[in-house]
Amino acid sequence: MILVNGVETEQISVTDRGLQYGDGLFETIAVVDGKPEFWGRHMARLQRGAEKLSIPLPPEELLLAEAEQIVGSDDSSHSVLKITITRGSGGRGYRPPESPTPTRILALSPWPEYPAGYYRTGARLHICKTRLGNNPSLAGIKHLNRLEQVIARDEWSDLEIAEGLMLDGENNLIEGTMSNIFFVKGDELITPELTKCGVAGVMRELLIDRLQGEEIPVTIRPISLGELDAFDEAFCSNSLIHIWPIRQIGDRGFSAPGPMTIHCIQLLNRPS
Amino acid sequence: MILVNGVETEQISVTDRGLQYGDGLFETIAVVDGKPEFWGRHMARLQRGAEKLSIPLPPEELLLAEAEQIVGSDDSSHSVLKITITRGSGGRGYRPPESPTPTRILALSPWPEYPAGYYRTGARLHICKTRLGNNPSLAGIKHLNRLEQVIARDEWSDLEIAEGLMLDGENNLIEGTMSNIFFVKGDELITPELTKCGVAGVMRELLIDRLQGEEIPVTIRPISLGELDAFDEAFCSNSLIHIWPIRQIGDRGFSAPGPMTIHCIQLLNRPS
Repeated sequence: MILVNGVETEQISVTDRGLQYGDGLFETIAVVDGKPEFWGRHMARLQRGAEKLSIPLPPEELLLAEAEQIVGSDDSSHSVLKITITRGSGGRGYRPPESPTPTRILALSPWPEYPAGYYRTGARLHICKTRLGNNPSLAGIKHLNRLEQVIARDEWSDLEIAEGLMLDGENNLIEGTMSNIFFVKGDELITPELTKCGVAGVMRELLIDRLQGEEIPVTIRPISLGELDAFDEAFCSNSLIHIWPIRQIGDRGFSAPGPMTIHCIQLLNRPS
Repeated sequence: MILVNGVETEQISVTDRGLQYGDGLFETIAVVDGKPEFWGRHMARLQRGAEKLSIPLPPEELLLAEAEQIVGSDDSSHSVLKITITRGSGGRGYRPPESPTPTRILALSPWPEYPAGYYRTGARLHICKTRLGNNPSLAGIKHLNRLEQVIARDEWSDLEIAEGLMLDGENNLIEGTMSNIFFVKGDELITPELTKCGVAGVMRELLIDRLQGEEIPVTIRPISLGELDAFDEAFCSNSLIHIWPIRQIGDRGFSAPGPMTIHCIQLLNRPS
């Protein structure tokens, strides 16, 4: 089921700036037993993106009511709710309209079934040749300009490879094509700084908060590719997978899941 | 009139990867007296973009037939034909489908009426705070990820300002939000290298070819912001405006139109 501005349809205007320029934002939300997970955190990130792009958001109650309508139409135990907000139609060329009428799209899709081994014995990551461009104006938010991820994801088709690790132009590790990445060194967690590129994931933020609540040190900083050898454990996170332990990045093997990774999985499984 | 895959409609599927990820390309073509200008050059650039993104293009004869159909539906002396090609629907997340079924959208819109002063006495350019991210995988092609241009174009609303000049993260001048830029120094033309970011415009390419045909030296190289003071003339180009002389960039004034700029305007007015 798909709702576009509250109406059940699968169509959108070709003049929509979401299509014309990728002028919009999205959230991918896990739905478990009929309930969207971490709704408040997804709304907060959407709000940050909307402020950065100056797109007025529909009221949260409206999005929630439509989310409940769409989730109620399906009886799967697990599904995926994608909320897309575009700047709508109008404006002159790239110039946004002064008073945009945003388009909201809510779509429910089946749960992606990933191989159980990714969770149990760890995921193998390809190091992508496609780099992320630095753009502080767009860093951190989940906008609709995702060609870098598309061409990076097209670099491999081997099912043994779960995810691709993307670097910026200066050989800093930034994120997976669809996930954030964490490393463990001793009793410290380290995750890349996302001030120049990358998407600050809801699961990344939640984990950082819970680790800080347990007084486990988390450092957010630039991480260079050359540092890979120095880490004890690695894992990636997103809203659907929660955490995949990582057993290999390129040629570098890790024992997976390591003890800190297991602790992080348990932290995320705690009720919110 | 809008044709989507040959059918007159204004709607497209919300599952189209053009909307989901900006996974596609476009061309903006001037239509003068019922004829699309520089069709061959637009098709060549579209082809280069399609190869870079691995999107199979529809046959050129089909695009031409649909272009003629849409242009024939309108009797304006000037209009704008926009051709958009997306990777269509399908695939799993960012991963493109193995055999994509691209979507083609042809849309005709009214000619944009810019103030006559931009042509006669020159355009004033704002220097944009929004920077272009470097990404060699996407540089040069006209893809649908245009948020950088959208937020840059949102930096000013003063009609006196015709265009915004965009820099990369290292203070190199790259292009306008919707045009390419050329500088004149003595008897030499200089235009920015577009190997890391920027769109290589059809009008830029045509002008470079014609200048080379006249044995006027054109240098394509990185140009830093600090070099602005050293240039004698400046102009910007795109398929619709052809050339706007530039009379001011930020605080730096130029006498406009300068003699080399006038020569370039004449070169472009020569029949192809």
